[in-house]
Amino acid sequence: MANSKYEYVRLFEQPDNLLPETWIVVRIDGRGFHKLSDKYKFEKPNDRRALDLMNAAAVSVMKDLPDLIIAYGVSDEYSFVFHPNCQLFERRSAKLVTTIVSTFTASYVCQWPIFFPDKPLDLSSLPTFDGRAVQYPNAKILRDYMSWRQVDCHINNLYNTTFWSLVLKGGMSNVEAEKELQGTVSSDKNEILFSRFGINYNNEAEIYKKGSVVYRQYQLEDQFSATTASLTQAAESQPSGELSKTQQEKMRKLRRKAQVVVEHVDIIKDDFWQRRPWLLSGKPGRLPVE
Amino acid sequence: MANSKYEYVRLFEQPDNLLPETWIVVRIDGRGFHKLSDKYKFEKPNDRRALDLMNAAAVSVMKDLPDLIIAYGVSDEYSFVFHPNCQLFERRSAKLVTTIVSTFTASYVCQWPIFFPDKPLDLSSLPTFDGRAVQYPNAKILRDYMSWRQVDCHINNLYNTTFWSLVLKGGMSNVEAEKELQGTVSSDKNEILFSRFGINYNNEAEIYKKGSVVYRQYQLEDQFSATTASLTQAAESQPSGELSKTQQEKMRKLRRKAQVVVEHVDIIKDDFWQRRPWLLSGKPGRLPVE
Amino acid sequence: MANSKYEYVRLFEQPDNLLPETWIVVRIDGRGFHKLSDKYKFEKPNDRRALDLMNAAAVSVMKDLPDLIIAYGVSDEYSFVFHPNCQLFERRSAKLVTTIVSTFTASYVCQWPIFFPDKPLDLSSLPTFDGRAVQYPNAKILRDYMSWRQVDCHINNLYNTTFWSLVLKGGMSNVEAEKELQGTVSSDKNEILFSRFGINYNNEAEIYKKGSVVYRQYQLEDQFSATTASLTQAAESQPSGELSKTQQEKMRKLRRKAQVVVEHVDIIKDDFWQRRPWLLSGKPGRLPVE
Amino acid sequence: MANSKYEYVRLFEQPDNLLPETWIVVRIDGRGFHKLSDKYKFEKPNDRRALDLMNAAAVSVMKDLPDLIIAYGVSDEYSFVFHPNCQLFERRSAKLVTTIVSTFTASYVCQWPIFFPDKPLDLSSLPTFDGRAVQYPNAKILRDYMSWRQVDCHINNLYNTTFWSLVLKGGMSNVEAEKELQGTVSSDKNEILFSRFGINYNNEAEIYKKGSVVYRQYQLEDQFSATTASLTQAAESQPSGELSKTQQEKMRKLRRKAQVVVEHVDIIKDDFWQRRPWLLSGKPGRLPVE
Repeated sequence: MANSKYEYVRLFEQPDNLLPETWIVVRIDGRGFHKLSDKYKFEKPNDRRALDLMNAAAVSVMKDLPDLIIAYGVSDEYSFVFHPNCQLFERRSAKLVTTIVSTFTASYVCQWPIFFPDKPLDLSSLPTFDGRAVQYPNAKILRDYMSWRQVDCHINNLYNTTFWSLVLKGGMSNVEAEKELQGTVSSDKNEILFSRFGINYNNEAEIYKKGSVVYRQYQLEDQFSATTASLTQAAESQPSGELSKTQQEKMRKLRRKAQVVVEHVDIIKDDFWQRRPWLLSGKPGRLPVE
Repeated sequence: MANSKYEYVRLFEQPDNLLPETWIVVRIDGRGFHKLSDKYKFEKPNDRRALDLMNAAAVSVMKDLPDLIIAYGVSDEYSFVFHPNCQLFERRSAKLVTTIVSTFTASYVCQWPIFFPDKPLDLSSLPTFDGRAVQYPNAKILRDYMSWRQVDCHINNLYNTTFWSLVLKGGMSNVEAEKELQGTVSSDKNEILFSRFGINYNNEAEIYKKGSVVYRQYQLEDQFSATTASLTQAAESQPSGELSKTQQEKMRKLRRKAQVVVEHVDIIKDDFWQRRPWLLSGKPGRLPVE
Repeated sequence: MANSKYEYVRLFEQPDNLLPETWIVVRIDGRGFHKLSDKYKFEKPNDRRALDLMNAAAVSVMKDLPDLIIAYGVSDEYSFVFHPNCQLFERRSAKLVTTIVSTFTASYVCQWPIFFPDKPLDLSSLPTFDGRAVQYPNAKILRDYMSWRQVDCHINNLYNTTFWSLVLKGGMSNVEAEKELQGTVSSDKNEILFSRFGINYNNEAEIYKKGSVVYRQYQLEDQFSATTASLTQAAESQPSGELSKTQQEKMRKLRRKAQVVVEHVDIIKDDFWQRRPWLLSGKPGRLPVE
Repeated sequence: MANSKYEYVRLFEQPDNLLPETWIVVRIDGRGFHKLSDKYKFEKPNDRRALDLMNAAAVSVMKDLPDLIIAYGVSDEYSFVFHPNCQLFERRSAKLVTTIVSTFTASYVCQWPIFFPDKPLDLSSLPTFDGRAVQYPNAKILRDYMSWRQVDCHINNLYNTTFWSLVLKGGMSNVEAEKELQGTVSSDKNEILFSRFGINYNNEAEIYKKGSVVYRQYQLEDQFSATTASLTQAAESQPSGELSKTQQEKMRKLRRKAQVVVEHVDIIKDDFWQRRPWLLSGKPGRLPVE
C-alpha cells in the first residue's frame, strides 16, 4: 500500500529557520504557576526548593544542549541563549524551543521528588512551561535583554519581599498590603522593610536578589585584560558561514567537558562578561586548572 | 529603579499567530527514542506499555486543552488537532506547540512509574519530545493528513512485525532481515509472516495496526444520517470571527464534561467521521445517555 | 576570481511561500493619491478618466498573469485574486506581490498620456502603488473579502457624492460639509442629495456605485443550474498537489484565450458567482460562442 | 449600511515587520529582461542608455525615500539598503519592497523616452521588476553582501565582454563562443580579449566593470582618520529604540538636502566606507562646502 496519495500534506509544513548570525533567546515561563504554588504551598515570597529545582532543570538543559551559551532564571521563568554561530537543528525555531521546553519539563518533573520529597505531584496539577524564541542582532542588545531580566528580578523581588513582610509579619491582608505599596519607589520599600521589620534588603540571599546564571565554566580572565570593545564585537568576528561542521562538532565536544555552574551574580555590569570572554565569543575557553 | 532603559528589547519579539480558520495540527515526536527504547529495553516490534503510556499522556493533553478536537498517535509520535474556529492563545504558534509539548512531557514522565514500575527513569536519559504546528486550510486536507499518519502506521507496523519475526523467531541478524525484506510489497510480508511464523497479520492487535485515536465522546450519529457533503463543509459554516467569547467559553465547558476516549479504529474511511459529526463541526454533541 | 567568499550572504534569504490551497489576495493601493489627485486636478468626487486608467492597468495585469482569477477595483485600490490551486512562483509572497505592483505601475504610467493627454506626468510626482498579499482559507471568506470591498465602495461613494455636492453645488467649505454629514446614515445622505440637489443616487453611474470587476469571460451558466452549495465547495475539490505541471500549463493557455472584461456589477449576491462557476472552481469555462 | 459583517476578513492580514536593528536590503530584478533587451535591441554586451536609465530610476528611488543609505546596481538588478535604525513603515517588509519596486518602475517607464527616444515602449512589452527584502544582522555582513554583488558584476562583465567580442568581432555563433569560454578563468578571458581583439579589459568603462553606486554625498573624511574598527561597529552604537521620532524626522530632512550621486567605484575595499562614515553610521555627514 503506497502512501503517496496522502503524502502531499507535507507541502503544508512551512519553514521557520531563524535568521543566521543573530543571538537566539528561548524564554520559557511556568504555566499557571500562581495556582501551582498555592496547590503545592510554595513559601512566600521565595521558595528556595522551587528555585533550586528550576536551576537543576536548567542545568539539565545546558548539559543536554552544548550549543547553549548561558541561561538566566528568575521565579518561574528561564532564558536560554544560543550564540549567533549556532547551527543546531538548522536554527529551526519550533525545534529549538520545543526541545528546550520538553527537556526542562522532563527534568523538572523527574527531580521534583528530590526537592519536594513530602509533596508528591498530583497528575491533575503538573508543572508545565511554555516558551518562545526571540532573535537579537548583536551582543549589545543581547546584554540589554539579560539586563532587562535581572532588573526585573530586582524590582519584583523587592516588591514581593516587602509585600509578604507586610502580610506575614505585619498582619495585613493582601489587599491592604497592595494598597500600602501603591506608588512607592525602591527607597520607600527599603525603608518599610528596615523600620518595620528590621530587614536590611541588602542582606537578603543573592539568589533572590540577583536570580540565577547558568553557564559553562572555564578559566576566568584577569579583570583588566579584556577591552570594553570586545564586549560587543566578539560575536561578529566569524560568521557561521565560515565555521565548518568539523569545527562546530569540535567546539561542541569541548563544551561538554566544561562544568556547568550556577551563580547569583550581577550580569548587568561589564565585569561579568569581560572575565568570561567565551560567553560572547562563542568559543570555549581553557578548562580551569584543578 | 526603572526598567525602561532595557525594555526596548521587547520590540524584537515577533508575532507568530497562525492564519484564522485553518485546521492546526501540532505533531510531536520522541527525541532519540530509538536510543531510549534500547536503554529501557522496550519490547520489539511494539511495547504495549510504552504505547499505553503515550496514550495516557495524550489523554492528559486532551483534558488539559478542551480546544483540542482529536489526536492520533502511533509509535513515539502524536498529532493533536485544533479546529479552525479555535482562538486559544490567539492562535500563537509557539504558545500552542510548547503548551502541548510540555503537558505531554510532564504527564509522560510523571506516569512512567505506573507503566514501567520496574524501570526507574535515569535523569541522564529522560524521554523528551519536540513538536511543530502545521496549518491545513480545510477538512478534506485535514482528513488526508490523518489518513497519511494511519497509512504510515500500517506500513511501518507490517514491516516491523515481519522484521522482528525474522530476527526474534527466525534467528536472522538485523542486516539479514533487512536484506530479506528489501523490495517486498505488503502481500510478500503477509506471506512471510503466515508461512514461516504462522502469524495472520489481520489478527494482530488493533492498537498496533491502527494506532490510537483520542477524542471526546458524545452520542454517535446513526450511520446513514450524515451526508457525505457534511464531511468537508462543516468546518466552514461559521467563521470564528462570528463566535463570541461567551460562546467559545460555553463550548469549552461542554467539552470538559465529555469523556475522553482512546480507540484503535479506521479513521481513513468516511464512517468514522460521519458518525462523530462533532469532530469536523467543532461543536460539542449530546452527551451519551448513561 | 571566485565569488564563494561572499556567497554565504545568500543564507540570509528567508523563504516566504504562502500556504498551499488558500486563496491569495494581492491588494494594491495608490501611495499619496490624495496629494496626487490635487496635483493633477482629478475631478471630484470621481474622475472617470482616472478610474478608466486604473481599470486599463488592471486589465494589463490580468493579461500578464493568467493565473489571476478575478480583480476588483475601487478608487485608487485594486485587489487581485489567485486561486487556491495557483502554483505561480511557488506561491512566494514577495514575488507575487511585486510582480503585480510593478506590472500595474508600468501599465498605469505608460497609459497615462492616453487617459490624460493634457496633463503630462511630472517626474517628481509619479503615481506609485504599494501592495501586500493576504491568504483566505476558503471560498466563503474570499467572497466575504470581495463583499467587504464592494460595501466599502458603496459607503465611500455615497459619502463622497454627498460631500462634494455640498461643497461644489451647495457652496459649503470642506469643514462645513464634513460637519453637516457627521452622524448621518445612508438614508440621510440620499435625502440630502435628492432634496437639495435633485440627485437620485440610484441613477449615479454604476462604475462609481459598484466599483469595477475584471475577469476572464466564458459562457455564462444558466441562472438556476448551479447549486448554492457549489459556491463555497468548488475550490476544495482538487488539491493543487494533484494538479500536474502539464495540467497547470494547459489551464494557463486556455485562460490566455479568454477575453478579459471589465464590469460594474454586484459581486455580493450569489448570482454573480453562480453564473460564472469558473471563478470559484479555478477551471476555465467554455469560450463564448461568437 | 454597516460594513461590520464583512470586516472580520481583516483578521487574516498577518504582520510582516522585519527584525529591528538589522540592515535591510531590497533587491529588485528586471523580469524577463533577456527577452526585453531583444525586443528593444539593447546593445551587447552593455547598453549604456539602459544602464543610465537604471541609474536614473535608482536616483528617483533614493530621493523619494530619504531613509535609504546606499544602492548598488548592475545589469538589470538594483540593491537598496536601509540602515538598522530605519523605522520607515514600521519596517513592514511588503510595504518597503513594493514601494521601492513601484517607484523604480514608475521612474523607469516615465524616463524611458528620454533615454530611448527612438524606441517607444510597446504596451505589451513593458519593463517590470520584482523584488524582495533580506535582513543582515551587522555591517560586516552587509558589506559582504555589497562585495558579493560587485564581484558578480566583475565576473559577469568579463565573461560577457569576451563572449560578445567572440560573437560580434570574431564571427562565432553564440554556441561556439559559449564553448570557447567553457572552463576558462579570468586570465584566459583577458588574454583572449587582448590577443584576438586588442582589447585591454582594464580600459573598459568603469560603469561596466564596477557597476553603479548611488548614495547621498557629504564631505569626504580624510583617508586615514577613520579606524578600521569603525567600519563594522558604527551601526550598533545606538539602537533605534533610543532614536526619537523627532530625531528620525530631523535626520530625514538633512538627508533630503544632500546630493544623490552615482559613482562607479570599488566598494569592496575599506577605503570607500572609511571616507564616507555616514553610510555605516546612518547619521548624515556635513554638507560639502560649495
